Amino acid sequence: MLDLLIKNANIITMDELSPVIRGGSVGIAGGKLVFVSETVPEAFSHEGAKRTIDAKGNIVMPGLINAHAHTAMCVMRGYADDYRLDDWLFNKIFPIEGRLTREAVLAGVRLGIAEMLASGTTSYSDMYSNQPAAAEIILESGLRANLSNGIIALSEDFDIEADRATKELAALIRDWHGAGNGRIRADASIHAEYTSPPWVWERVHAAAAENGLVTHIHLCETAKETAECMERHGGKTPVEIFSDHGIFDTPAAAAHCVHLTENDMRIMAEKGVSAVHCPVSNLKLASGVANVKRMAELGINLALGTDGCASNNDHDLFEEIKLAALLAKGTSLDPTAVPAYEALRMATVGGAKAQGRENEVGRLKPGFEADLIMLDVHKPRLQPLFDPVAAAAYAANGSDVCLTVVRGKVLYENGEWTTIDAEKAIAEVQRVAVPIVLGKK
Amino acid sequence: MLDLLIKNANIITMDELSPVIRGGSVGIAGGKLVFVSETVPEAFSHEGAKRTIDAKGNIVMPGLINAHAHTAMCVMRGYADDYRLDDWLFNKIFPIEGRLTREAVLAGVRLGIAEMLASGTTSYSDMYSNQPAAAEIILESGLRANLSNGIIALSEDFDIEADRATKELAALIRDWHGAGNGRIRADASIHAEYTSPPWVWERVHAAAAENGLVTHIHLCETAKETAECMERHGGKTPVEIFSDHGIFDTPAAAAHCVHLTENDMRIMAEKGVSAVHCPVSNLKLASGVANVKRMAELGINLALGTDGCASNNDHDLFEEIKLAALLAKGTSLDPTAVPAYEALRMATVGGAKAQGRENEVGRLKPGFEADLIMLDVHKPRLQPLFDPVAAAAYAANGSDVCLTVVRGKVLYENGEWTTIDAEKAIAEVQRVAVPIVLGKK
Repeated sequence: MLDLLIKNANIITMDELSPVIRGGSVGIAGGKLVFVSETVPEAFSHEGAKRTIDAKGNIVMPGLINAHAHTAMCVMRGYADDYRLDDWLFNKIFPIEGRLTREAVLAGVRLGIAEMLASGTTSYSDMYSNQPAAAEIILESGLRANLSNGIIALSEDFDIEADRATKELAALIRDWHGAGNGRIRADASIHAEYTSPPWVWERVHAAAAENGLVTHIHLCETAKETAECMERHGGKTPVEIFSDHGIFDTPAAAAHCVHLTENDMRIMAEKGVSAVHCPVSNLKLASGVANVKRMAELGINLALGTDGCASNNDHDLFEEIKLAALLAKGTSLDPTAVPAYEALRMATVGGAKAQGRENEVGRLKPGFEADLIMLDVHKPRLQPLFDPVAAAAYAANGSDVCLTVVRGKVLYENGEWTTIDAEKAIAEVQRVAVPIVLGKK
Repeated sequence: MLDLLIKNANIITMDELSPVIRGGSVGIAGGKLVFVSETVPEAFSHEGAKRTIDAKGNIVMPGLINAHAHTAMCVMRGYADDYRLDDWLFNKIFPIEGRLTREAVLAGVRLGIAEMLASGTTSYSDMYSNQPAAAEIILESGLRANLSNGIIALSEDFDIEADRATKELAALIRDWHGAGNGRIRADASIHAEYTSPPWVWERVHAAAAENGLVTHIHLCETAKETAECMERHGGKTPVEIFSDHGIFDTPAAAAHCVHLTENDMRIMAEKGVSAVHCPVSNLKLASGVANVKRMAELGINLALGTDGCASNNDHDLFEEIKLAALLAKGTSLDPTAVPAYEALRMATVGGAKAQGRENEVGRLKPGFEADLIMLDVHKPRLQPLFDPVAAAAYAANGSDVCLTVVRGKVLYENGEWTTIDAEKAIAEVQRVAVPIVLGKK
C-alpha cells in the first residue's frame, strides 16, 4: 500500500525523459517515489493509499535545494543593510557573531528551518558554528542538510582556531555523517582562501577524501579576494591555488564564483566543481554578477544558494531561481540565456549534485527519495497556467508553496508545520537572539 | 467618528518628517487619513471608530503604485518566455494581441486587478486597448488608475490608426478623466518614438496640455530603439527629439529609460520627467539595466513598474522594489546605492509623482487619501523585525500583504477580495482568453 498518493498534478519531474507531466500522479511508499506518471499504474490503482491528495492541477515538483546558507544568520535579518562590505562585515556582522551564544545560534537554525520548509526547501548546505547541535534540530525537523563548520581565524590565534575547527569537523563526521539514514551529511569546509593557510586546506581535504565528503567553500566572491590571493600566491587565483593543492580532486561545492577567469572556469569544469550561484547576496553586497551563462556553456554544474539572511534577507529560493534566469539574460543581453527550466534545474538537480545527493534527490523519479513540494496555482498571480515550468520559475514565490514533503513525510502544509512550532521559534529568537544582536546582552 | 482605526502598527509613513512610527495608529475618515501618529489623538480616543484593527505590530505603509503596466497582458502569463525580443514581440505577442477580443482584454484586466490588490498595489498606470471598458471595471474594483491607450501602428494604415487613437484619447478624457472622484485619470500616451511620427506626438501633447494630463511613454527601452532613432532624426536620441517637440513641457512618465546618455538624463531632470524603472522586465527581455543610481543623483523622479505580465511574469511590486535596490548595488559595485528606503520611495512617493498624484497618495500623512497596505510580519520570513523598512524592501513579497485599503475602503483582506470575485475572474480568463492565446479561437 502506498503511504501517499498525489493525483491530478501538473508535475515538473526535472527528469530528462519526461520533464513535465500534466494531470499526473505521484506514488510514495517507504519514503521513496514509487511512480511518477500520467496515470496510477494498475498495480497500485486497487491497493489505495494511506492518504490521497487531490492536487487539483497544482504544480508538484522536486523540493528545492539551497546549496549555500548560513541559516542561523536569520537572527540578524534586516539589522544591517546598505553598508559597504568591510564596514558591514567587520563592524556589524563579525562583532555580533562573536557575541552569539550557542542558544541564539540554535534559535536561528530553528527559525530558518521553519522559513525554508514554508518556502519549499527540502535540503540545504549550511556552513556555520554549532553544527552538532544544529544537526539535532534538523533531524527532528525532518529536513535534509549538509553541515559544515567554517573556519574564520583572522587573529594570531589562527593555528589554535584551525586546530579546533578540524577537530570539530572530525567530531561532526564521527557523530553526524549519514545520520537520519543519510538525511544529514557532514561536509568538509574550507571557509575561503583568505581565511586559512594551505596546510589547513590539505588537512580538510584529507578528511574529505577519507570520508567521501563534499568540500564546501567560499570562492571568488569579491574582486578583492581574487586580487589579494594572486598577490599572496605568485599570481595564482583562488581556483588555481586550490587546484594545485588537490582540493578539487574530491567533490567540491563553491559558493559565489563571481570573479572567475576563463581558466578558472575550465579548471572547475574539468575537476567537476559545482558552482553555487547566490545572485541576491552577490548583488546586495555589490560583489558583482557571476557569469552563469559561460559556466553553463562549459558544463559546470550550477546550484543556487541564498547565502545568509543578513545579505538577502530571506531563504526564498524562488527569488534566486527567478533572478538567476533574469540576471543571466540582462547581463549577457541574450533573452534566451538560462531559460526557465535551466533555472529550476539549478535549484533541484544541480543542487543535489552539489550536495553529493544526485542519485537521491533533485528529480521526481521512481526510486529517488520522496522530497517534493506543491505550489498552489489557484490564485490570480499564477493564472492562467500555460506552462508549469515558466510559472514555477518566473511567477511563483516561496509563499505559493502549500505542501512540503521530505522522505515521504509531510513537514509543511497550508501554513502549518508538522515538526516545528514556528510561533515558538519566533518567540525564542526574540528572547535569546535579538537582545544579543542589539548589543543589550 | 472614524471609519477605520488601525492601532499598534509599525508604520512606514514615507513622510520625511517621521518616516517610521513604531506601535503607531492610523485614523481614517471620509476616505482620508485623519492622523498618523504614535498615539491616538485625544479628540479621537473617545469618539471610537466604526471599525478598529489591531495590527499587532504588522507593518502599515502606503499602497504601492505600479507606474507602468499593461494589465490585460496577464492573459499571456507564461505563454512565451525565453525568446529573442523581436521573435517574442512579432511572432508571439503581437499576433495574439491582434486576436484578443474586447472580452478577453477585460477578463485580463479583472484578473490583473485581483492580483494587484492581493499584492499591495493601490494605484497603477496602464497603457493598453479598451480603456473605457477597463475603467468601468476599475471603478467597480475600488482601485486607482491612470489609463492611456497606446498607439502601435506599424503598417501602411498608420495615419488611420493614429487618428483613431487620438479620437480614443479624446473620448477617454471626456468620459473618464477624473471619474470616481479622481480615482481614474486619463493619461496622454505616446507609445514610443518608433511607433509614431512627430505630428502624432504634438497632437497628444496638445491634449495633455489642454487637460492637465501626464504623458505616459515608452522611452529608450532597448539600445536598438535609441540607435534607430538617432539614425532617423539626425543624431538625436529619443529624449532629445521628444524634448525638441515640447513633449516634456507637460508632466511625463517615461517607462524603462535603460539606454540614456548623460545629456538625456540632464534633460529629464531639468524637465521633471519621471523615469519608471522596470527592472524585472528589462532583465527578462535582455534590454539591459537602467542607471538608477545616476538618475537619482541627478534628481530625476524615480518610480517602479512591472510592465506587462508577459515579460515579468507577475504584478508583484515588492519584486521590483527589491530588485531596484539590488541591481543598483550590484551594477554600480556600491552596496550603499539605492538603500531600502529609496527603493520603497520609488514604489510610493515616486510613483505618485509619476501619476500626477503627489498631493493625493504615496505617503501616509493627514489629509492624504487613505490608500494603505498592511504586511503580516508574524511569520518566519519576516522575523525578527529589526527594521520595518528593510523588511518591506528586502524580505517581504506581495503574498505578505494581508490588507489593502484604497480611499479608506478595504478591498482585500486575508486572502479575500471585497469588490472582485477572483475565482470568477480566473474562470473568465480561462473561458474567453486562453483559447485565443492558444490560437484555438
